Amino acid sequence: MRTVVIGSGAGGLTTASTIRKYNKNMEIVVITKEKYVAYSPCAIPYVISGEIPSFQHIVMHTPEYYRKNRNIEIITESIVVDVDSEKREVVYYDREGNKRTLKYDYLVIATGGETFIPPIEGRDLEGVFKVKTIEDGMKIKDYAQKSTSATVVGAGAIGLEMAYGLRKLGLKVTLVEMAPQVLPRALDIDMAEVVLKYLKDLGIEVILGKPLSKILGDKDGRVKEVVVGNKSHSCDMVVMATGVRPNIELAKRAGCEIGRLAIKVNSRMETSVLNIYAVGDCVETVDFITGQPTLSPFGSTAVRQGKVAGKNIAGISAEFKPVLNAMVSKIGDMEIGSTGISELRAHQSRMEVVVGKAKALTRARYYPGGKPIYVKLIFDIDGTLIGCQIVGGERVAERIDAMSLGILKGVTCEELVNMEFSYAPPVSMVVDPIALAAEDAWDKFRKLK
Amino acid sequence: MRTVVIGSGAGGLTTASTIRKYNKNMEIVVITKEKYVAYSPCAIPYVISGEIPSFQHIVMHTPEYYRKNRNIEIITESIVVDVDSEKREVVYYDREGNKRTLKYDYLVIATGGETFIPPIEGRDLEGVFKVKTIEDGMKIKDYAQKSTSATVVGAGAIGLEMAYGLRKLGLKVTLVEMAPQVLPRALDIDMAEVVLKYLKDLGIEVILGKPLSKILGDKDGRVKEVVVGNKSHSCDMVVMATGVRPNIELAKRAGCEIGRLAIKVNSRMETSVLNIYAVGDCVETVDFITGQPTLSPFGSTAVRQGKVAGKNIAGISAEFKPVLNAMVSKIGDMEIGSTGISELRAHQSRMEVVVGKAKALTRARYYPGGKPIYVKLIFDIDGTLIGCQIVGGERVAERIDAMSLGILKGVTCEELVNMEFSYAPPVSMVVDPIALAAEDAWDKFRKLK
Repeated sequence: MRTVVIGSGAGGLTTASTIRKYNKNMEIVVITKEKYVAYSPCAIPYVISGEIPSFQHIVMHTPEYYRKNRNIEIITESIVVDVDSEKREVVYYDREGNKRTLKYDYLVIATGGETFIPPIEGRDLEGVFKVKTIEDGMKIKDYAQKSTSATVVGAGAIGLEMAYGLRKLGLKVTLVEMAPQVLPRALDIDMAEVVLKYLKDLGIEVILGKPLSKILGDKDGRVKEVVVGNKSHSCDMVVMATGVRPNIELAKRAGCEIGRLAIKVNSRMETSVLNIYAVGDCVETVDFITGQPTLSPFGSTAVRQGKVAGKNIAGISAEFKPVLNAMVSKIGDMEIGSTGISELRAHQSRMEVVVGKAKALTRARYYPGGKPIYVKLIFDIDGTLIGCQIVGGERVAERIDAMSLGILKGVTCEELVNMEFSYAPPVSMVVDPIALAAEDAWDKFRKLK
Repeated sequence: MRTVVIGSGAGGLTTASTIRKYNKNMEIVVITKEKYVAYSPCAIPYVISGEIPSFQHIVMHTPEYYRKNRNIEIITESIVVDVDSEKREVVYYDREGNKRTLKYDYLVIATGGETFIPPIEGRDLEGVFKVKTIEDGMKIKDYAQKSTSATVVGAGAIGLEMAYGLRKLGLKVTLVEMAPQVLPRALDIDMAEVVLKYLKDLGIEVILGKPLSKILGDKDGRVKEVVVGNKSHSCDMVVMATGVRPNIELAKRAGCEIGRLAIKVNSRMETSVLNIYAVGDCVETVDFITGQPTLSPFGSTAVRQGKVAGKNIAGISAEFKPVLNAMVSKIGDMEIGSTGISELRAHQSRMEVVVGKAKALTRARYYPGGKPIYVKLIFDIDGTLIGCQIVGGERVAERIDAMSLGILKGVTCEELVNMEFSYAPPVSMVVDPIALAAEDAWDKFRKLK
């Protein structure tokens, strides 16, 4: 029996490794267009900033490692062009350009996504970059070292991290976002204001509510300015952090059903075609709160999906559950996290909500080094937690995880008010900021009665 | 209407402040034997260590603050000697030694506990200290500054924190614990080993499995050595961190029912006597896992109980729920936390359990500054989480809180394996250490089937 995996990102390689963990005999072949495998794309901004010393650091394993230690064959720099699900074979061009076919018993489509680059003038100029592969990262770092200013387009987590990274390298940085706030997918505008202030304090110029209209080049075809709205801003380079579009072409060729947003899979990560699975940025999943299809383009999601697909292929039943799209990012000394639905998105879905907020500290008031932390909790009108956003100087990620667990298990406002939080002066306040925010909401619920 | 509160610790003052929050007219009087109120006893070891600059820092409010800002009267340095629950009055001696009585409509007993000092030879020598009040802390710090060596008795959280604090002051420190491990209430021995190694690396000598037999003094009546088992060790001072006994005398005089361990209260924090409430270290509460009475001598528990008592007195119905005794402590660069039942205690209660463990890092492998983190999860045989212990270099407290929430909401091993954790390289691994530990347990469950 042979499993062929298309794609060597977190989803593809986790699927391969998981199959191997539970099945020693399966032949496993991964085909990837990439040269480097098993690296963390989420880490690219932190190499740009210098917080991680080099790109070599973020490559965790080589294809040889997989061959020797896990008996997984990885065919690099090869492009799959077709899948024939009748014959159960994939067609690909290897690194020498030879066309080859490979039979499979199970196929895993882990083709990821491509950065969406808006169709504007100047998008092909020298000095315009996307942030997708490790090679993109290397090119950006090289180019940045001979530049003095940069425009980052898109204020999602990657946009913010790139803006910070380039700023830390000493560039004058402008961040452009079409939405009227930073992190529009993750935060409500009130929480985004805290982040915005921090970005400005770092010396990053932020332009909100306006699209990038065009990029202008010099006589050598290199970026020299961008036009945002009607105003032009000179800069040496442009980094597109404009979101990711799922790669669904091969799935289509294989006859897999495509959903509203990406490849459709069931909870076992099976596509509509027998023995073809799909995982990672190329699939759509279910939003836990709304029940609607959603994209969950996170490395951690891809890993969890890969584990589910791998177990099922190895004959161990496993299910991938609806997602909250919990996220966390660290920009300098600020951690930003969110999970579940935002207040804005709840209103857009015509859900009635009650919100609780708290501004507190990460340590006891008198303990040196405590940092401000802002917590926002979103409850449905029955008092069940459906969303949480936290911005603070430390200890945000695990609080987000606690609230994710709370949402998944149906925790109520009253339960969070009374919740038992561990306490010691160097690591927390005697009443946790989450309990304070819950109490704020609880007081509002009381007045509603 | 008048509420009298006996005791100015976290439980007493939180009750008073909570009543005031919801009732502007109640007369509120707090009677306390202490001179300083509204300080954090949990912070004492961190002042000893110098991590908090002075004892003044940990006093958050003065009696004047309460009078002016919350209209709460605090009578300091006064000792309540009797409660007459028929006449509804308390009898106390004020700071000048005058006997006085005060009528109440509601009484709150927040009398806390006393350090249990074993009845051994030498316990009254100069240089023997307990760690209860801020004055104890001040005396210890003074005495330590003219000492070169100390013995700390008891390896609970306070014992460890004191040992670390004195060591950081430059003393030679010996820690003595009767149990065969450090943190016997919080950790299993496998996890305690990690802490033990760290203490030894700090240069703290640890003697386990042996009681303190006696303390010997010099001709001036000052501590000069301790005898542990049969062996004597010279030292200049002894700090007793030997646990706390609830102060239940006044509750007894008031006719309140006393449980197996301390004052008995219902979920509203009411004692058996009408209109008498009790909160904090002097009450017993219910263990969430075993359903048995337990003590929960934490500042954070006292605050939560005070909020419940205060709301009920103010006419807003509130309930205090069974506890997990979640704890966290920070010793130098190590955070230690636990919640729910330990493997040992589960065995002692004849519960069959499955354990999952993981050793991982607090950041992505390649991200500089990541620290080791050890996670142990304890599941009942049906796969429901009932306990968690974590030791690591950072980000322990909130993970413990997440697992507390999980236990309270009945999270299963399978749910934790598939759990959605937020991820970014500077703050977490792509698979959270908790998910790794859950997967370890999950593999064991699979083999049981």
